Amino acid sequence: MRATTDSPTHFLDADRVAAMLARKGLPGSFRGLLAYMEADFRRWPDFDKSARTAAHSKEGVIELMPVADDTLYAFKYVNGHPRNHRVALPTVMAFGVLADVATGMPRLLSELTLTTAVRTAVASVMAARVLARPDSRRMALIGNGAQSEFQALAFHHVLGIQDFHLYDIDPAATDKLAAHLRAAGLAVHRFDSTAEAVRGVDIVTTATADKTNATILTPAMIEPGMHINGVGGDCPGKTELHADVLRGARVFVEYAPQTRVEGDIQQLPADFPVTELWQVLRADAPGRLSREEVTVFDSVGFALEDYSALRFLRDLALEQGVDERISLIPPLDDPKDLFRLVACSPALALAAA
Amino acid sequence: MRATTDSPTHFLDADRVAAMLARKGLPGSFRGLLAYMEADFRRWPDFDKSARTAAHSKEGVIELMPVADDTLYAFKYVNGHPRNHRVALPTVMAFGVLADVATGMPRLLSELTLTTAVRTAVASVMAARVLARPDSRRMALIGNGAQSEFQALAFHHVLGIQDFHLYDIDPAATDKLAAHLRAAGLAVHRFDSTAEAVRGVDIVTTATADKTNATILTPAMIEPGMHINGVGGDCPGKTELHADVLRGARVFVEYAPQTRVEGDIQQLPADFPVTELWQVLRADAPGRLSREEVTVFDSVGFALEDYSALRFLRDLALEQGVDERISLIPPLDDPKDLFRLVACSPALALAAA
Repeated sequence: MRATTDSPTHFLDADRVAAMLARKGLPGSFRGLLAYMEADFRRWPDFDKSARTAAHSKEGVIELMPVADDTLYAFKYVNGHPRNHRVALPTVMAFGVLADVATGMPRLLSELTLTTAVRTAVASVMAARVLARPDSRRMALIGNGAQSEFQALAFHHVLGIQDFHLYDIDPAATDKLAAHLRAAGLAVHRFDSTAEAVRGVDIVTTATADKTNATILTPAMIEPGMHINGVGGDCPGKTELHADVLRGARVFVEYAPQTRVEGDIQQLPADFPVTELWQVLRADAPGRLSREEVTVFDSVGFALEDYSALRFLRDLALEQGVDERISLIPPLDDPKDLFRLVACSPALALAAA
Repeated sequence: MRATTDSPTHFLDADRVAAMLARKGLPGSFRGLLAYMEADFRRWPDFDKSARTAAHSKEGVIELMPVADDTLYAFKYVNGHPRNHRVALPTVMAFGVLADVATGMPRLLSELTLTTAVRTAVASVMAARVLARPDSRRMALIGNGAQSEFQALAFHHVLGIQDFHLYDIDPAATDKLAAHLRAAGLAVHRFDSTAEAVRGVDIVTTATADKTNATILTPAMIEPGMHINGVGGDCPGKTELHADVLRGARVFVEYAPQTRVEGDIQQLPADFPVTELWQVLRADAPGRLSREEVTVFDSVGFALEDYSALRFLRDLALEQGVDERISLIPPLDDPKDLFRLVACSPALALAAA
């Protein structure tokens, strides 16, 4: 690939982002991104928001998630294909762009597959920080796929969760998660069912991939004071929580117009009461009201979280002296003379038939 | 940038696309893309279509344009910032992606700034071929900016237009266009006003950039049998044609739900009759009905045209042996083990505070 040092568009590929996060350290990366995300959610009214566009097929979904304020525009491309593991591809793959609102110039193109895993875990932590009981120590992880290590480590490093209860219908996935968490020095307990795994925990994280109306959590499994971090129910026809679990809890969402279509609350009427997370972060609405209350973060993933992640990566690259460019937009001497790009090429036979 | 020969994502930067089109020759590029675009428009019902999402600011607009059929998903990022020339940037900049519907894997990332100019001209030709009088020889070009050479050359090479009447409020833009067209051996005539430029021509192409409700063409300028190729009226508050010009013509559009918001017909009621171009291309609806009829192609640019352009570029790269890759999606040995990307990095202090 040719050198493009003078291009205005920075590029961070998958290896580069992995190396940047490794250099920063995962704990520092979680905390760093959390600060960006909280700052952005607290100025929620500044953003031009919309529900993401989704192209559904029988195999999965491809989505575009744009958001902008007065100065920066961001979007993410992301897919969700639950059967991708059969062809050795991740369920979720993503990339994104940060652009100048004033000119439309794309300033950063970045991988977001790895980054989405980090940002989804950080969004979960951002919610749990105001919704879970402050002395929470035990978390169940139902669904031990690509997202699970990030959830566990973010909750450990930011919220001090010590014990992890694991369950997945695929034991190999649990093997993998358990090995990673033990290598990181965390206490891991395996169970043979969701019901056993969630018994006695403070927080239940569900991150399953099946595109179906599943009932991973039923009312009988719910204990007073639990916080439920529902990560996997995130598109139409893909839910994880029994409707009565939602009815028996206070439910928090990112952006209600999107979550009512995609989240677990798609099972409930359009007027089912929910609180948007930014309201809690700005102290415009209360978080947890009592030790006994059951809280649900019906997470689907919102564009603003990717905006925060792209800002974080941009600044981290600057901090670490990472400066790779990509020639996505052609440089023009005269902006009205695009034609010169082809006219000046000696190979071009303008008038040839 | 590191070598990424094994990545599944191809990458075509701006220089590469310019060189590919130059090698193919502009006439061949116009005809080649036209064949792709006509084939795609003829199978219009196969596509999952939606109006593009637009983020408007006081300086311009940034849009995402997705479209998909059963096998391929495409989207384009494109901006429209009419005052960009003041900071030496193009009004329109773009890039796009072609992805597999079955897995969500992005297969091609390409520049689309230059390509958008080519595809917009080809879409205009595709419409004019069924709407302008078959013996059309003279075209007025109102607005002589970045898009104008592509319009002129596409109409020349595909439809045999010989004489070009030019007008722009910026004489320097006309200087540039006239020089390029004369270098290509075309007959060029300059005028001091739109009214003079359009007198006696068969086709009028308007491609102006101002984000305003302009009336570039008024009813007094319209002659029987003219075909009007309205390219510049393409977002809310940005029109070029007097409403009575539309009322006095048969109006053709790409995708009515989008054009009613963005096109010149935004000035008219929602039930103003229009014909979608694909209907004419499939012979489901008539094109021009008589030599005297005035026809308007109210072009705003639709995602399917970019889908065609991305397919064309993908196949042209294959034909020319162009094979550059970009590591946009991380390769994973175990698709459920995304964490390995960061866990295996020696720089990563997993348990560090």
